[in-house]
Amino acid sequence: MPYVNIKITNEDVTPEKKAQLISGVTQLLVDILNKNPATTVVTIDEVDTDNWGIGGEVVTEIRKKNAK
Amino acid sequence: MPYVNIKITNEDVTPEKKAQLISGVTQLLVDILNKNPATTVVTIDEVDTDNWGIGGEVVTEIRKKNAK
Amino acid sequence: MPYVNIKITNEDVTPEKKAQLISGVTQLLVDILNKNPATTVVTIDEVDTDNWGIGGEVVTEIRKKNAK
Amino acid sequence: MPYVNIKITNEDVTPEKKAQLISGVTQLLVDILNKNPATTVVTIDEVDTDNWGIGGEVVTEIRKKNAK
Amino acid sequence: MPYVNIKITNEDVTPEKKAQLISGVTQLLVDILNKNPATTVVTIDEVDTDNWGIGGEVVTEIRKKNAK
Amino acid sequence: MPYVNIKITNEDVTPEKKAQLISGVTQLLVDILNKNPATTVVTIDEVDTDNWGIGGEVVTEIRKKNAK
Repeated sequence: MPYVNIKITNEDVTPEKKAQLISGVTQLLVDILNKNPATTVVTIDEVDTDNWGIGGEVVTEIRKKNAK
Repeated sequence: MPYVNIKITNEDVTPEKKAQLISGVTQLLVDILNKNPATTVVTIDEVDTDNWGIGGEVVTEIRKKNAK
Repeated sequence: MPYVNIKITNEDVTPEKKAQLISGVTQLLVDILNKNPATTVVTIDEVDTDNWGIGGEVVTEIRKKNAK
Repeated sequence: MPYVNIKITNEDVTPEKKAQLISGVTQLLVDILNKNPATTVVTIDEVDTDNWGIGGEVVTEIRKKNAK
Repeated sequence: MPYVNIKITNEDVTPEKKAQLISGVTQLLVDILNKNPATTVVTIDEVDTDNWGIGGEVVTEIRKKNAK
Repeated sequence: MPYVNIKITNEDVTPEKKAQLISGVTQLLVDILNKNPATTVVTIDEVDTDNWGIGGEVVTEIRKKNAK
């Protein structure tokens, strides 16, 4: 019955990796908290780098600086 | 003043159905909790089936199996 | 499979009213979007009036003014 | 270490304005709560006006009425 | 930089188990998506069983029935 | 009409500081995006340090180490 929401930037996230995340997080909830996987829901939000900030700075800008 | 967030998979959700959901949820909050509809906010997140998991499995894969 | 989160202030919300909200919202998702109720999850966050603001003002203060 | 999520309708929000929001909210958390900006995360969700309701009505419809 | 929110019912969740969840989810994001753990944030919401519904029913009631 | 959710650890957050946060964030949305403050909602979640992780570690543990 748990609900997990994962927010990541939309950078190189393949369907395979998303499937691994969903499977892995669900298994953790089964292993650690003995939750029922059948009603465990995981959603992934892929957020545009223009819409994500850390340290007061937009990730798009951080990526540009790091690429130099 | 309530805030409601509805997360559903992005499968066949027409604007008409979204309008019904928003109107219906707002009315429930008025009827049950006597909330002021004028400041009741409802947002709907339509999540790609690649980004939604249940039972440790991605919904895209579940849909493929069920279609067989 | 939908997930709904309802945020309300923690003012006079009885277990009965919360049960009605959960039942009502789930039924709306069945009626409007033909969702499976068995995997429809609804959570309610009751937020302290000190932690809720509207119009730039804390609800605790709004309530005090209205009580005068 | 704070996490802030801002939900707005997707109407005329330029990257510059989003950068100002991220920078401004981060600075508020530094100024008011003495938080470390390096681990302060801000995400912005731009929600389609079809998916946002207030007063029981979809924002797309509200905008149409106001435009008349 | 990812942000993960885990919602579970407040039933027998020890600090040790919460620490395991936080550590496990962070490691998954490192292993699968090569994320930087130093800025990966995980929060856990423990929700009262009166405030969690599934199948249109409040978890408190489901627990009572199952205990019979 | 924006909705903002601020998550912080529950460490020394007075009602006065929360009021400043709510007022400050609302003003930012007015100044930067020309939003209507009357329907701008801000909620603050104060999360127990046992339920917040960064770098794969629980904040309660981080605080203990730093206190030494």
